Amino acid sequence: MTLRLDAYRSLWRDQAELGRDPRRGGYSRHGFDDADLALREWFAAEAEARGLVVEPDRNGNLWAWFGAPGPDAVVTGSHLDSVPGGGAFDGPLGVLSALLALDVLEARRFQPRRPLAVVVFAEEEGSRFGVPCLGSRLLTGEFDADAARRLTDSDGVSLPEAVHRAGVDPAGLGADKQALGRIGVFVELHVEQGRAMIDLDAPVAVASTILAHGRWRLTFHGEGNHAGSTALDDRRDPMLPAAHTVAAARRVAGKVTGARATVGRVEANPGGTNVIASTVDVWLDARAPSSPDVRTLVDELVGHAEHVAHAEGCRLTVHEESFGGRVVLDPALRTRLAGWLGGVPVLPTGAGHDAGILAAHVPSAMLFVRNPTGVSHAPGEHAEEDDCLAGIDALAAVLEHLAL
Amino acid sequence: MTLRLDAYRSLWRDQAELGRDPRRGGYSRHGFDDADLALREWFAAEAEARGLVVEPDRNGNLWAWFGAPGPDAVVTGSHLDSVPGGGAFDGPLGVLSALLALDVLEARRFQPRRPLAVVVFAEEEGSRFGVPCLGSRLLTGEFDADAARRLTDSDGVSLPEAVHRAGVDPAGLGADKQALGRIGVFVELHVEQGRAMIDLDAPVAVASTILAHGRWRLTFHGEGNHAGSTALDDRRDPMLPAAHTVAAARRVAGKVTGARATVGRVEANPGGTNVIASTVDVWLDARAPSSPDVRTLVDELVGHAEHVAHAEGCRLTVHEESFGGRVVLDPALRTRLAGWLGGVPVLPTGAGHDAGILAAHVPSAMLFVRNPTGVSHAPGEHAEEDDCLAGIDALAAVLEHLAL
Repeated sequence: MTLRLDAYRSLWRDQAELGRDPRRGGYSRHGFDDADLALREWFAAEAEARGLVVEPDRNGNLWAWFGAPGPDAVVTGSHLDSVPGGGAFDGPLGVLSALLALDVLEARRFQPRRPLAVVVFAEEEGSRFGVPCLGSRLLTGEFDADAARRLTDSDGVSLPEAVHRAGVDPAGLGADKQALGRIGVFVELHVEQGRAMIDLDAPVAVASTILAHGRWRLTFHGEGNHAGSTALDDRRDPMLPAAHTVAAARRVAGKVTGARATVGRVEANPGGTNVIASTVDVWLDARAPSSPDVRTLVDELVGHAEHVAHAEGCRLTVHEESFGGRVVLDPALRTRLAGWLGGVPVLPTGAGHDAGILAAHVPSAMLFVRNPTGVSHAPGEHAEEDDCLAGIDALAAVLEHLAL
Repeated sequence: MTLRLDAYRSLWRDQAELGRDPRRGGYSRHGFDDADLALREWFAAEAEARGLVVEPDRNGNLWAWFGAPGPDAVVTGSHLDSVPGGGAFDGPLGVLSALLALDVLEARRFQPRRPLAVVVFAEEEGSRFGVPCLGSRLLTGEFDADAARRLTDSDGVSLPEAVHRAGVDPAGLGADKQALGRIGVFVELHVEQGRAMIDLDAPVAVASTILAHGRWRLTFHGEGNHAGSTALDDRRDPMLPAAHTVAAARRVAGKVTGARATVGRVEANPGGTNVIASTVDVWLDARAPSSPDVRTLVDELVGHAEHVAHAEGCRLTVHEESFGGRVVLDPALRTRLAGWLGGVPVLPTGAGHDAGILAAHVPSAMLFVRNPTGVSHAPGEHAEEDDCLAGIDALAAVLEHLAL
């Protein structure tokens, strides 16, 4: 049974215009913003057109059920939100592939013995409220509901206000045993975010492990003043320790094998050319093969940041936005998946995913689709059509095996 | 003749709520934005209530004439726009004081022999379109009209679109010999932006010189990618050379006597926590006692920036947003002013002003009002009421001497 190419192209096209970012390039689709709400509507309409029953859960994740909901359901899906100026595939490919894999099974007149569902997790990138995999972390109880209710975006809009717009009651946010209890197994298909599959000449692969990962906001507090009339010696300029810390992040990460430290976001307040900043926020993304490795890296960097802040008469505060340990995806499950797919490669990844959050609670697996440049979180992110179709066929095969 | 305190307080109060910035603190009033347009309306109403005739010039500066316009007019005024999160005094104090000084003269039934005018210069801080003293630079021809028509703000709104909202025809932007030709002498009152007058125990002073000053935007171009899945060695991360350049700016400035270099604004694109930036913009504000000093500083820093960009596989582009040489305000005029005011101090400043732009074309002078903290371009900027009243009396005295 082959998938019809035009079904893929049609489904792709319908969502491809939502949330484009003409200024940055690519897409800016952030949890519960206008673009995300349009994508959620698009998803619901597509799912309902397939006879699925769509319902949000208490944390704003969307579920589309084939037949009666759970328990012991075979669940697939991913997310629809993006990083700012992100690529087209990170997230949506997994959601499209889930719907199209069900089409494949339907065309085969496959009769599942277990319930099937497609899920769209909310705010996976954490681009709006700072916490990656927010929807799956809330559902599993890995992120505290009260802390979530205190989250705000950069315009000061709170998470409760944002989810309310999506028809979600903020009072209900938090661990959702019912929704979690229905999941028998979770499989997420995702575009690969590195170059490993190019060298392996593999259009599809299975994931093994995910790096430990956290996010910290380092705020350097100084004294705002005039850039022209304030002598160098009279300054407490937080931009200087911020710059020294950004430079040190690379040095410190280089000392820990397999570690990565990135500063991709810096905000000076008030942010005027002729104004010495009063505060500078530096967001640190740190990952490593183990939680202790990440802690070692961050502790050393924060110690350095405190030192350079003090040397400039500034003060440092540190806020941990999120932290998660190394994930080992279910070894037996991933071996079965690789076998069903004819022995495709099994690969680690440095990128975080909702499957990595669920893995601590239910058997979880991931399929990767080859990325011909390795670029991700950028407009150049890509996957060839043939590889995407191979991914859909692979997902359909996996769902069939699991739901038999 | 003393000024009535309640007239000052009333005028202050009427504009004090316009353009407040609850997020940054202080005020965000940028050329031709909603707050600025409201302030311009407020000014026009106040001027017209005093019998002045208000008209914009071709560059969006506002003029309020006492009697028939020019030539050989005695002109006073300042600006109403602010830096982001700026103080309440930088700009508005000079405009309020101009109106209130005319009230003082009116109360004395003073009959000027020269025309008198109050001017509000547009976009003095350059916070929206990047070019400080944009209104006075355009009027004097110091900034090219075609270059101005290509300016855009950070939301992509062009200067022509912005001035159109203020009723100004973008086709008319540029050197305005008629408006310039009317000015016989210009006096700008301004809150002091340093601490010199505290030590001198002087509520009012006269300005002598202004530092040479320029603004540059350094853009580091790298490769956007995923913060988790991209190995350190595979990165071309523009944030790193940006950080090294910010740190170097202080070092390089420290080698030039009297120089200042400031980075108060940094923008990473796309600006996601889990995203290696594709580009990083760093705005450099550099000032020194002479133009060659500024050029030496900037050339050395740009050379360093190119070096560190290359070392990270990145590329640097540099855009000069504005440049102006050292300003010596008319020595004879400033001596006369200091004498009329009983021998007040005469002080240099590091801050730029419209009076510094006009000084190359017409005799220009500045009065400073004491700042009890020295803080400026920040919400803590302040001037005591008594000192402000002293400034108004001083300005009235100067205008009277000049217009006699």
